[in-house]
Amino acid sequence: MKKIIVQKFGGTSVADTEKIKNVAKLAIKEKESGNDVVVVVSAMGHTTDYLVKMAKDFSTVPSSREMDMLLSTGEGVSIALLAMAIQAQGYDAVSFNAMQVGIITENVHSKARIIDIKTDKIRNNLNAGKIVVVAGFQGVTEDGEITTLGRGGSDTSAVALAAALNAERCDIYTDVEGVYTTDPRVVPNASKLDKISYEEMLELAHAGANVLHPRSVETAKQFNVHLRVRSSFNSENKGTLIQGVEKMEIYKPVAGVAADLSQARLVVCDVPDKPGTAAKIFGSLAKENISVDMIIQSYARKVSNTNDIAFTVDMSDIDKTLSALKKLKEDIGYEGDIQVDKNIAKVSIIGAGMIDRPGIASTMFETLANLDINIRMISTSEIKISCLVDKEKAEDALKALHKVFKLESDKTADVKGDLPQV
Amino acid sequence: MKKIIVQKFGGTSVADTEKIKNVAKLAIKEKESGNDVVVVVSAMGHTTDYLVKMAKDFSTVPSSREMDMLLSTGEGVSIALLAMAIQAQGYDAVSFNAMQVGIITENVHSKARIIDIKTDKIRNNLNAGKIVVVAGFQGVTEDGEITTLGRGGSDTSAVALAAALNAERCDIYTDVEGVYTTDPRVVPNASKLDKISYEEMLELAHAGANVLHPRSVETAKQFNVHLRVRSSFNSENKGTLIQGVEKMEIYKPVAGVAADLSQARLVVCDVPDKPGTAAKIFGSLAKENISVDMIIQSYARKVSNTNDIAFTVDMSDIDKTLSALKKLKEDIGYEGDIQVDKNIAKVSIIGAGMIDRPGIASTMFETLANLDINIRMISTSEIKISCLVDKEKAEDALKALHKVFKLESDKTADVKGDLPQV
Repeated sequence: MKKIIVQKFGGTSVADTEKIKNVAKLAIKEKESGNDVVVVVSAMGHTTDYLVKMAKDFSTVPSSREMDMLLSTGEGVSIALLAMAIQAQGYDAVSFNAMQVGIITENVHSKARIIDIKTDKIRNNLNAGKIVVVAGFQGVTEDGEITTLGRGGSDTSAVALAAALNAERCDIYTDVEGVYTTDPRVVPNASKLDKISYEEMLELAHAGANVLHPRSVETAKQFNVHLRVRSSFNSENKGTLIQGVEKMEIYKPVAGVAADLSQARLVVCDVPDKPGTAAKIFGSLAKENISVDMIIQSYARKVSNTNDIAFTVDMSDIDKTLSALKKLKEDIGYEGDIQVDKNIAKVSIIGAGMIDRPGIASTMFETLANLDINIRMISTSEIKISCLVDKEKAEDALKALHKVFKLESDKTADVKGDLPQV
Repeated sequence: MKKIIVQKFGGTSVADTEKIKNVAKLAIKEKESGNDVVVVVSAMGHTTDYLVKMAKDFSTVPSSREMDMLLSTGEGVSIALLAMAIQAQGYDAVSFNAMQVGIITENVHSKARIIDIKTDKIRNNLNAGKIVVVAGFQGVTEDGEITTLGRGGSDTSAVALAAALNAERCDIYTDVEGVYTTDPRVVPNASKLDKISYEEMLELAHAGANVLHPRSVETAKQFNVHLRVRSSFNSENKGTLIQGVEKMEIYKPVAGVAADLSQARLVVCDVPDKPGTAAKIFGSLAKENISVDMIIQSYARKVSNTNDIAFTVDMSDIDKTLSALKKLKEDIGYEGDIQVDKNIAKVSIIGAGMIDRPGIASTMFETLANLDINIRMISTSEIKISCLVDKEKAEDALKALHKVFKLESDKTADVKGDLPQV
C-alpha cells in the first residue's frame, strides 16, 4: 500500500487562481513521487473577512450557528477550484467538504473540537488513484449541524486527518520557510529551526508564534503525527520537522522566543477570600468556551479578607468574559470593579533544554530589567517562561531575549507577504 | 396546524445586505399573518458569474461534479445571511443547505432532477416557531454527492418543497409585478395577467419568458401547487396566480407572446431515409442530457433516398450536440454536413383559448408575412404556435403579435432592474 501524505495550504496560499495552480503543482509533485496525497485547504485569502463584514451588516453578534454556516462556504469554494486546477494539469482529483467526509465534531459552534473522522470515502478515492482535496476548518455534528474549528482550524483538520489516515507525514505549507526562533518580521536575523519538539512548538504556539495553531500541535503530539512546516514558494527547502522530544538532541537551552499581542488582562477586584471562588469564576468562563491563559491571585488582604484575581484572555473574548462575570456578581459577592487592560503583551522564552539548566529565568528577568521593562505577571511551565509586559515594550523585549539566548542567524530571513492566515 | 407558505427569492432579490433585509421583512410579514414560512433563496446577485469566471481560469470545461461543488457555495452564503437578517429583526430563523434538508436528486451533475425531499427537519423547526431558510438550486444524491438543478433551479426547489410540505401557496418573488402578456422590456405596454393556467405558463416559459422555469411549472402542475409570481418591491400587489385551467374562464384566445433568442438550429444533411435514424440521433442527444426543442424532418429525396433533419437546441449545448452527432456518423452513415445557425429566434403565441377558435394560426402567419418575415420552422401544440424566424426580426414580430391579439395594456409596465436571475 502506498504511503499517504497530507498537505495543508492556508488562505494566502490559495488567495487567487494563480496561487491555486501552484498548490496543484505541489500536490501533483508529491503524487508523482509515488505517494497518495490528501490536500487540506482553507478559504481563499480574504474571503472570511468579506463574509464576516456582510454578517456584521445585520448584527454585531450574529448567531454562531449561522456564522458557521456562512464561513464554511469559504472552503467550499477553494476545494472545488483546487480539484479543477489539479484536473486541468491532467491528474484525477475530487473535493469533499467536512460533511461529505464525515469530520465529526462536538456540538459547539465556532470553536468545535474534532471527535472522529470517517476515512472510507477518502481511502476509496485514494485507491482509485485520485488526489483528494478536503475542506479545512469545518466539521459536522452527528446531527448534521455544520461547525467550524476556530482560529487555526485548518491546521488541526490536516493533523487530525493525518492521524486518522495513519499518514506518513503532514506537511503544513506556509509562506515562510519553517519555524523560526522568533517572528522574522520583528527580528530579521531570526534563525530557521530544522527540528523542534512537539512540546516546544506547543509552547511557542501558545506564546503567540503564528505559524501553527496549538491545537494542531497537541493533536500531532497525541497521535505522533510527523509534522513539517514548509514553504509553498520554495518546496526544495525541507522546512522544520516537529517530532517527539526523545528523538532530539538539545544544544541550546532556549529554542525560541515569542510575543503575543492578542491578550488582554482582566482583574476582578475585592473578591471574598473563601474556597470555591476561583472555581466558580473559571468554571463559568470555561462553560462559555473562553480560554484563560495566565492566572494570578493576590494574597488575601487581612482587613477586608478579599483578594484580587487577575487573568488574561484573548482580546476577542473580552465582552463575553465581562458578561459572564457580571452574571456571577451576586453569587460570588465581589465588591470591586473589573479592570480591563488591553495595553499588555506576553513575552515568552521556550526550550526543552531549560529543564536542567538553572539561571535561565534569572537571565530573562535581568534582560528585561536592563531595558527598564516592568514585569506585571509571570507564568512558567517546565519548558517555558512567560512575562506580561507593557505592549509598547514587547518588540524591544523580544529582540533582547533573542540576542541574549544566542538565537540569531547570520543571514536575514526570507519572509514573503504576511504570515499565513488559518 | 398552521398553513405553510413557501417563498422564493432569486439572485437579484438578495444581491446585497440591504436587499436581504427587505427579504427578511417579507418573510416576517408572512409569519406575522399567522402562517409558517419556508424561504428558498438563490445565490446573491452575480456570485455565480464570479465563481464561473474563476473556474474558467483552469479549464474551459471544468468537471461538472466540481462545478456543482463550487456553485452550491453561493446559496450557502445567502441562506446564512438571510437567517441572520431575520434574527436581527427579532424573529427566530434557521438555515439549511440541500444536504442538511435532504433534497435528494438523481445522480446527474449540473441538471439534476429532484427525486425526494425529506421534510422532518423543516417541520420540526417550523413547529418550534422558526422561519426556515433553505438553499435553492442545489440537491444531494443518495451517496452524498452535491448536485445542482440547472437554470431556473431555485424555482423548482421552491415548488418541490411546497409540494412536499403540502404548502398552502408557493410565492415566487421577482422584480416584476407578475407574469406579463410578453416581455415588458421589449413591449412597454405589455399587460400583467392576474391569472394564467399551468399549461399556458408552461408554454410561455418554454417559449422564452424568463419569469419562471418550465420545470417549476411542470412540478406545480403535477402536484397542484398554488403558484404565485409577485414583486419583492411591491408586496401589496397580488401578482399573477398560476392554477389549473379548469378553474379559469378564458376571454382571449391568446394569453401571451414570447421570443426565445437562446436557441440555435442544427441541420444534419443527407441522412439515409430508413427507420430508426431519428431515434438514434435523438436518443443519443437525450443520453447526453441535451434538450431538443423543435424538430423537422424533410421529405426524402427520391434520387439519393436521404433527407435532412433539422432541430433546435439551447445555444450552450451546441458543442456537446456536435460531438454527440460526430460519434454517430459511422453508425447512421449521414453523408452531408451539419449546419449550425445561431441567427434565429423562436417567436410563440400561447393561449388555452386557441383550442376551439380557428384562424389563430393563420392570423399569426399573416402578421409575420405583412412584416416580410420569413418563417423557417413551425411547431405547434394544442395551446401554442411557435415560428422560427431570423433573430433580428424577433422584436418586430413580438410587437406586432402582441398588438394583433389585443394584449396591450393602457399603462406602461413598471420594470425595476433586470429580470430575475434564477
